[in-house]
Amino acid sequence: MVGACLSCDSCTNHLENYCPKAILTYGAKYYDGTTTYGGYSDTMVSDEHFVVRIPENLPLDSSAPLLCAGITVYSPLRFYGLDKPGMHVGVVGLGGLGHVAVKFAKAMGVKVTVISTSPGKKKEAMEHLGADSFLVSKEQDQMQAAQGTMDGIIDTVSAQHPLLPLIGLLKTQGKLVMVGAPEKPLELPVFPLIMARKLLGGSCIGGMKETQEMIDFAAKHNIQADIEVIPIDYVNTAMERLQKADVRYRFVIDIANTLKSNA
Amino acid sequence: MVGACLSCDSCTNHLENYCPKAILTYGAKYYDGTTTYGGYSDTMVSDEHFVVRIPENLPLDSSAPLLCAGITVYSPLRFYGLDKPGMHVGVVGLGGLGHVAVKFAKAMGVKVTVISTSPGKKKEAMEHLGADSFLVSKEQDQMQAAQGTMDGIIDTVSAQHPLLPLIGLLKTQGKLVMVGAPEKPLELPVFPLIMARKLLGGSCIGGMKETQEMIDFAAKHNIQADIEVIPIDYVNTAMERLQKADVRYRFVIDIANTLKSNA
Repeated sequence: MVGACLSCDSCTNHLENYCPKAILTYGAKYYDGTTTYGGYSDTMVSDEHFVVRIPENLPLDSSAPLLCAGITVYSPLRFYGLDKPGMHVGVVGLGGLGHVAVKFAKAMGVKVTVISTSPGKKKEAMEHLGADSFLVSKEQDQMQAAQGTMDGIIDTVSAQHPLLPLIGLLKTQGKLVMVGAPEKPLELPVFPLIMARKLLGGSCIGGMKETQEMIDFAAKHNIQADIEVIPIDYVNTAMERLQKADVRYRFVIDIANTLKSNA
Repeated sequence: MVGACLSCDSCTNHLENYCPKAILTYGAKYYDGTTTYGGYSDTMVSDEHFVVRIPENLPLDSSAPLLCAGITVYSPLRFYGLDKPGMHVGVVGLGGLGHVAVKFAKAMGVKVTVISTSPGKKKEAMEHLGADSFLVSKEQDQMQAAQGTMDGIIDTVSAQHPLLPLIGLLKTQGKLVMVGAPEKPLELPVFPLIMARKLLGGSCIGGMKETQEMIDFAAKHNIQADIEVIPIDYVNTAMERLQKADVRYRFVIDIANTLKSNA
């Protein structure tokens, strides 16, 4: 975000991200009618209210994705109360969002299980990212054995996928939080929600106060995104690789050293 | 319920209704292996833990449905925090559950809008039950005008129905609570949940402590179900009328005066 009305109910409750007039960093119209270009621009104009201070000990490159992927997972962990030490939280999908979800949840003292369609990601999830366990979502026996064990799940998957097996993993009163947005509606079985007072909620980045809190928490716990730094002229190749999910886990463009200003 | 384990996490938190071993009043097996017959039986055996005291000023017949329909809507109004004076709550469907939802929500000081497919129910909803407003869910202009106005919705409909228009009625961070259970999965659009941190949750009757609290609240505010008392030999006709939704709003069988015991 680079702007919001700062006067509506959402804005006055530190939830500028839910302001109907919020101006997104990329692909939106700024107050003067110019288009915002986000991370593809060499300079950006923003109200100081929308500027986050990056603590000294955090590298700028690996912190950049935290301002989107980081806050996207940090905010629901806090809001839905899935941040208490000893809780058990599932993370569905191990990509740009999922890998930082594991790091933040672990730093909060939560037991983390990664749920993925790819058995090959087990080693990465447990050894590199520090997840406590790993479930292959296609393996029915594994999923069955984990039924009713989780306080909450952060679902980062934006492809179509079945919700019923995930709802089954939740304890009574468990929470399934969607942060990836599938294009088409998903099939929602209502009965299992009713029988155990489970809920399914959404969440979208975070307000500025919470974004600063997230980045300070990241600095304190040395949480960074895993990135691959690229020059601006690599962007088209990076886009092709993104479509094949061929990146661990976020590309960061080195604008300062590789983008030549038109000015 | 006539029984539960009384030792699991749910039971020890006054949520016997979510105990995996809860024994339902009707169509279940009691500890001794006998089938439970609920309201069709002249006597019933229950642990005293599962007995509710009906206050003196509440008639037994019109209080009976409160022990199912009443607690089914009272519990989510409390749990999801939709019980604060001045809030705006929608009630979808004006039947056995919906008509008591209006009464309880009004008694909590909440502004209530009934949402129904039947324009003919408007007078009943507003004049008889005291709802503040009425929306015909098929009238797009009415629904459009009410977008983003509700803190929560209690959805009592168990037929297939679209969720998107209901989610649209909610304010940012609004809550759609399902208490009717459609047989097949519903279509869930995820994007509108994410963009405004809305949630969709389930709820199923209530624990014994809350059920007593509900009945005491009903006594204090003189809330009763609207009923039609019938003799036991009218049951088959009543079943046929139920299928046509031809009852305002619950049948109550006068067991004491019309059922001849086999004993």
